[in-house]
Amino acid sequence: MQNKFTVTPWEVSGEVDYDKLIKEFGTKRIDPTLLERIRKHTGTLSHFLRRGIFFSHRDLDWVLDEYDKGNKFFLYTGRSPSGPVHMGHVATWMFTKWLQDKFNVELWFQFPDEEKFLFKDELTLEDTKKWTYENALDVIALGFDQKRTHFIIDTVHANLMYKEACRVAKKITFSTAKAVFGFDNETNIGSIFYTAMQSVPAFLPSVLEGRNIPCLIPHAIDQDAHFRVSRDVLPKLGYYKPAAIHDMFLPGLGGMMEQGKMSSSEQHTAIFTTDSPAVVREKINKYAFSGGQATVEEQRRKGGNPAVDVSYRWLTFFEEDDRKLKEIYEDYKSGKMLTGELKAVLIEKINAFLKQHQEKREKAKKEIDKFIFKE
Amino acid sequence: MQNKFTVTPWEVSGEVDYDKLIKEFGTKRIDPTLLERIRKHTGTLSHFLRRGIFFSHRDLDWVLDEYDKGNKFFLYTGRSPSGPVHMGHVATWMFTKWLQDKFNVELWFQFPDEEKFLFKDELTLEDTKKWTYENALDVIALGFDQKRTHFIIDTVHANLMYKEACRVAKKITFSTAKAVFGFDNETNIGSIFYTAMQSVPAFLPSVLEGRNIPCLIPHAIDQDAHFRVSRDVLPKLGYYKPAAIHDMFLPGLGGMMEQGKMSSSEQHTAIFTTDSPAVVREKINKYAFSGGQATVEEQRRKGGNPAVDVSYRWLTFFEEDDRKLKEIYEDYKSGKMLTGELKAVLIEKINAFLKQHQEKREKAKKEIDKFIFKE
Repeated sequence: MQNKFTVTPWEVSGEVDYDKLIKEFGTKRIDPTLLERIRKHTGTLSHFLRRGIFFSHRDLDWVLDEYDKGNKFFLYTGRSPSGPVHMGHVATWMFTKWLQDKFNVELWFQFPDEEKFLFKDELTLEDTKKWTYENALDVIALGFDQKRTHFIIDTVHANLMYKEACRVAKKITFSTAKAVFGFDNETNIGSIFYTAMQSVPAFLPSVLEGRNIPCLIPHAIDQDAHFRVSRDVLPKLGYYKPAAIHDMFLPGLGGMMEQGKMSSSEQHTAIFTTDSPAVVREKINKYAFSGGQATVEEQRRKGGNPAVDVSYRWLTFFEEDDRKLKEIYEDYKSGKMLTGELKAVLIEKINAFLKQHQEKREKAKKEIDKFIFKE
Repeated sequence: MQNKFTVTPWEVSGEVDYDKLIKEFGTKRIDPTLLERIRKHTGTLSHFLRRGIFFSHRDLDWVLDEYDKGNKFFLYTGRSPSGPVHMGHVATWMFTKWLQDKFNVELWFQFPDEEKFLFKDELTLEDTKKWTYENALDVIALGFDQKRTHFIIDTVHANLMYKEACRVAKKITFSTAKAVFGFDNETNIGSIFYTAMQSVPAFLPSVLEGRNIPCLIPHAIDQDAHFRVSRDVLPKLGYYKPAAIHDMFLPGLGGMMEQGKMSSSEQHTAIFTTDSPAVVREKINKYAFSGGQATVEEQRRKGGNPAVDVSYRWLTFFEEDDRKLKEIYEDYKSGKMLTGELKAVLIEKINAFLKQHQEKREKAKKEIDKFIFKE
């Protein structure tokens, strides 16, 4: 049996083999020694680390070396605003917030509002402006510390960014861009330039403070291509290579084998932060791929298969309590828990989260201006 | 005999055949009918038009149609800051000022301070920043009306420009950029993107005023490639095609056949606005290619050849008085005027201009801030 999968900034499909990805991309697995080093600073370990959801890194050990020497890193992550935020985005940012809280560091959050405009025919800059606002509310709602969190919007902060992007761009040939991103002669010249803008937040704080500051980028591994380029170019400009920590994809409700990651464009199989409790219930009940048996009797007899069950996989992202998760795992596997019951647990978990999130999202409308970086 | 010449935004060399250029680029010659239409608005005609130095155009007739209907155009020109301003730049801007004064229109003057940084290995953004300041002083010294003249500096006004450049860039494939500018796989991705930034001032005033305003670009014809692209893209964004009016190159002192245009990088054969009277005298006496005869006796007998004489050619740019110019022409051709005397006339003319210019350039230091566009 052959598993084919694709992981690029533009496409994630197939059943992703993360071991193979680590090899192909040349990243490193987060091993027990590294986990122990993190735990020394953070006391406990986030469930995203305990369960290997954040599984891979580049130079995270070096970032900790520098931290130990008193040279604090800053965090950089972002969101290309082109549609509503789904639970996959939320997971990456929850962990980012954990890092901010535990290490007491600055976070630079980029909204590259030109990216999807350049890459997608049908999107306008007016669309991406609207989505920047909507997505920013979600980020704020997750509780990032306003004093240490700085939103950078590419078209709004171009005075800061374009000049620095030109410094990066001068070091990247079309040849390189073609090889890394798969561009061809029909690619528009804005798309070709774009990666330079995505590199900027990885050293912008160093520019602004006039000293070299380590950068750690928590991100889903599909964005690795951009940061491979950044890591190649930044030392040529006198900055550190940005370090990175990568998470696995939260699968779409359709299942790990069907969909590489949840996608905003596939509305049925994604759960958005603005979905109502009824919609969440319906989507999970109707679409969440089940590892259970065909009938209740069979389930009781043979038990379910958590390894392919999307509801169970989602709970590994959103149920932080290891004891509870273990109980669910055992009950489901033994046949004590039915598919409908497992789905009910997930529905309750997600709806409880979204109830709070949506309230905070409303309040965020008054706070958004404070998060936008001002020179 | 074969005349080979090259005219691109990056290179002008050989003896330029302007008729051939009009044909190749697909521009139109400024004919007597068009001159007469201009004269109706301006009373007299600038010597740059009378003498065919501004010789070619795109859609200038349409710009005048719109003007007649009360739909005033704006002017757009610029300077890529990478070295000192020479007399060739001055000539184009003198005519631009004439247009501003006679038609009573706004001028948007772009300083694309990233362009030469991207295209030349050795230039830094610090260099181009310095040259932006120095070059801006020259523009101001030429007497442009401060109230109607707006300086746009790409890295300083990126908040205004980058977003609009992305709209342009989305409509230009690498294929097009390659064909128009001769890019290859080794071209850096900033250079590839740059033409989008050069298009922006051609419609930025329309964006800011929320209505479609005709644009007329006075420029040396080597920049035509950029504006061919602009003319292709802008209608797709809902704006008018920018119109253009092109001048011939002021030759370097080395002569029309040696050097397509004066170049800042060839210091001997260029005269800069900051040159002292002694330097001007030395350069012209030493380097200005002469159409005169080998000896005084021969010159008296056979006369000189104004058609290849650089000093004479320069006087067609800078001696506005037709009567005086005609006298010089005849005296030189007949042998009454010697090469040394012709050079003395040019030296006096240039030094008189530079004396005033350098004084105004000093005063400009206090005015520069008023010229920089503020939203």
